[in-house]
Amino acid sequence: MIIQDTIVALATPSGAGAIAVIRLSGKDAITIAENQFKSVSGKTLSEQPTHTIHLGHIVDGERVLDEVLVSVFKDPNSYTGENVVEISCHGSNYIQQEIIQLFLRSGCRMASAGEFTLRAFLNGKLDLSQAEAVADLIASDNQASHQIAMQQMRGGFSSEIAKLREELLNFASLIELELDFAEEDVEFADRTQFKELIDRIIHVLKRLIDSFAVGNVIKNGIPVAIVGEPNVGKSTLLNALLNEERAIVSDIAGTTRDTIEDEISIGGIGFRFIDTAGIRDTNDVVESIGIKRTFEKIEQAQVVVYLFDAVSIFSQKASVENISIEIEKIKNKYPQKPLVVIANKIDAISGKELEELKNSIKDIKLISAKTKKGVEDLKITLTNFVNTGALRNDETIVTNTRHYDSLLKALKEVSKVKSGLNTGLSGDLLAIDIRQSLYHFGEITGEISSDDLLGNIFANFCIGK
Amino acid sequence: MIIQDTIVALATPSGAGAIAVIRLSGKDAITIAENQFKSVSGKTLSEQPTHTIHLGHIVDGERVLDEVLVSVFKDPNSYTGENVVEISCHGSNYIQQEIIQLFLRSGCRMASAGEFTLRAFLNGKLDLSQAEAVADLIASDNQASHQIAMQQMRGGFSSEIAKLREELLNFASLIELELDFAEEDVEFADRTQFKELIDRIIHVLKRLIDSFAVGNVIKNGIPVAIVGEPNVGKSTLLNALLNEERAIVSDIAGTTRDTIEDEISIGGIGFRFIDTAGIRDTNDVVESIGIKRTFEKIEQAQVVVYLFDAVSIFSQKASVENISIEIEKIKNKYPQKPLVVIANKIDAISGKELEELKNSIKDIKLISAKTKKGVEDLKITLTNFVNTGALRNDETIVTNTRHYDSLLKALKEVSKVKSGLNTGLSGDLLAIDIRQSLYHFGEITGEISSDDLLGNIFANFCIGK
Repeated sequence: MIIQDTIVALATPSGAGAIAVIRLSGKDAITIAENQFKSVSGKTLSEQPTHTIHLGHIVDGERVLDEVLVSVFKDPNSYTGENVVEISCHGSNYIQQEIIQLFLRSGCRMASAGEFTLRAFLNGKLDLSQAEAVADLIASDNQASHQIAMQQMRGGFSSEIAKLREELLNFASLIELELDFAEEDVEFADRTQFKELIDRIIHVLKRLIDSFAVGNVIKNGIPVAIVGEPNVGKSTLLNALLNEERAIVSDIAGTTRDTIEDEISIGGIGFRFIDTAGIRDTNDVVESIGIKRTFEKIEQAQVVVYLFDAVSIFSQKASVENISIEIEKIKNKYPQKPLVVIANKIDAISGKELEELKNSIKDIKLISAKTKKGVEDLKITLTNFVNTGALRNDETIVTNTRHYDSLLKALKEVSKVKSGLNTGLSGDLLAIDIRQSLYHFGEITGEISSDDLLGNIFANFCIGK
Repeated sequence: MIIQDTIVALATPSGAGAIAVIRLSGKDAITIAENQFKSVSGKTLSEQPTHTIHLGHIVDGERVLDEVLVSVFKDPNSYTGENVVEISCHGSNYIQQEIIQLFLRSGCRMASAGEFTLRAFLNGKLDLSQAEAVADLIASDNQASHQIAMQQMRGGFSSEIAKLREELLNFASLIELELDFAEEDVEFADRTQFKELIDRIIHVLKRLIDSFAVGNVIKNGIPVAIVGEPNVGKSTLLNALLNEERAIVSDIAGTTRDTIEDEISIGGIGFRFIDTAGIRDTNDVVESIGIKRTFEKIEQAQVVVYLFDAVSIFSQKASVENISIEIEKIKNKYPQKPLVVIANKIDAISGKELEELKNSIKDIKLISAKTKKGVEDLKITLTNFVNTGALRNDETIVTNTRHYDSLLKALKEVSKVKSGLNTGLSGDLLAIDIRQSLYHFGEITGEISSDDLLGNIFANFCIGK
């Protein structure tokens, strides 16, 4: 595909800052910029070497728009693989807009979302999974998701896929060669070696497919529902975990009518804490809507934290029996979900009461959200729910639903090849299944792509990238 | 002043964008960056020429934080006049923070607000009024404020001040020289020429001081209060002027309980429109608080727009008499403020009624905020309240209160010199007044400055500039 036009967009976040960067890419990027730029040294931009920076003014006829630094990148040594100019201007919204408008009048087109990265892909600077990782990298907000995106962007995932694809392709060629010599009944492709390869590919595919569970959780954060009666300190616990005042904390039971979601990184993993309105029986309509929501949120959560007020038990407001019933309710309704039972406000009960509590409810965690006692221990409990083995060993982890899909399809086809080999399927039929497998491998790295697919992928990018 | 330490800050707005720029400045900026950077080409940063860009990875030991472009600027060819490194990384908050934290651990200190520009000033890259213009430039949100800040940043204001200062300094030297030859009674400084100079200086100072009125208005926007009964279409007019839906528009009288402020650029000048709750008599407590606020807002406004509903007059809900009384109320209370009287909703009355209206209220403007009829004409009326002569002629305009202050003080001292010359004051006394004038000139450009003054000025900057 030959791209002719030059695109422009703001590459830095909008809003006022010290500086902003406006990016141009395309065949004419440098000459378009040159026409609106007066270099302090009097140099002509297009005559400058690549990767150099030039001080001067962006001018619209006689009018000076800003004093700027212009960076020049020459085809193919740029992010997009085209001529690229980056203009570092003063961070006023007004100036940014004036400069972009000027370039739109001077032959540029406004870039659409992800168009710079799309061009990088089309010009062979990145494969498709690397391009997708750029968006993941920008969205990454904790160590784990950052590490996975970084590995994928640097080609770790692609190279693993590409290696398998190449080996498979070699065998495919040999088997297809056999078809040309069908009358002579030769076997170029060693069937034993081929079976070994297929087994190895199936093993890797299964590992990658399995990694999606942890990858997905790391990319999107692990949802944890905090459930309990009103006024047991859910919001305070949330704040203690968040280390900041986010939820509304008050002494009126039922203050938290709506669910509040917030993400916090614990041990490098993102957790999305969902503060719910509790599940006590009530006649209050608003409150009962809250309870319905609580169950909906438990449904979505991967881990449930049940919280109760240790003081209430000893002040007769609640009882161990009632609390045990509620815990059973959750356990029965969601037998698969890990449940953490916590007694809060232990700063306000005696040592004797503390012992009593420990003995009456199994596996209970004793904390004080107020004094933060036990909060660190709770954090460790939560991180233990995530299998971070693959992460620690720097293994490839699949986080992208599209990749997961293609891997599943590839596995299906490769499994067909395997049973074909076992049943002595003829070479021509074997070749078809192998080609199908190769197709799905190619979908991941973008060797096989369609405009629709590309449109879908890059529409999720921000403008300017 | 010798600055030893290296500072770091995010230079682009916080938040997610395609890219972010992190800036380091100081003697060790390049070597500090070099230690955390692995260039793709294997080159060493400190051996690279100034104004060059290098692709590579920011690394924290074994961990790769991001793929980045690093720009190198070598002392004195940088914004601050020191060694400067700009790191263009992926625009994730997480990555930005990780990179900044890494540099803080590697010998950098977090930059305070405006510290890069402060260093530029201390290293003689900018004078003080130019440095101040940088902040104004970033804050500029319309053509007029941008033009003034740009002119000031490029030294237009400083050079005018510096020229006067130099001429005055020449005479001061001559007069002080006379003191050395006091016994010989010579006059090195031609008194006639000196008087001419002083007159010229006074003339320029007065022009600059006068320009502050328009400069201040341009910098901060011209406050315009829109006043009128509830439901006359104030919010709709505001929206018509703003060309977007900002204020709440409904058919219930008194919807706009709070004042809403919004700035719009008309003919390159910023206007701050203040939508008020009107001034009708009412028993509603909330509403009457609104009326009190309306008067407070009129107090602050430079222009008052009184708006009434043309339809209401012909449907007996209101009367020309009542409206005339309210207009008189405003005129009597604020006789100095320009008042624009507008009949709205003229799309809903007949041509005959329109004529009647024109004849019964003097200087009335007839508009329909809904169909936008007459809105353009209103914009012209509003821009005519601003004297943009100086702006058109590219004259220096003072926008900074500190400069205004120093100019007033300088004028006072120069006027003393003038009367001293007229009354034949002795050279030694004359010299004192001249030195005082020179002092105030120097305050503007920063030749005279104190740590307190600098602290005050740069504290108003954003961090990273």
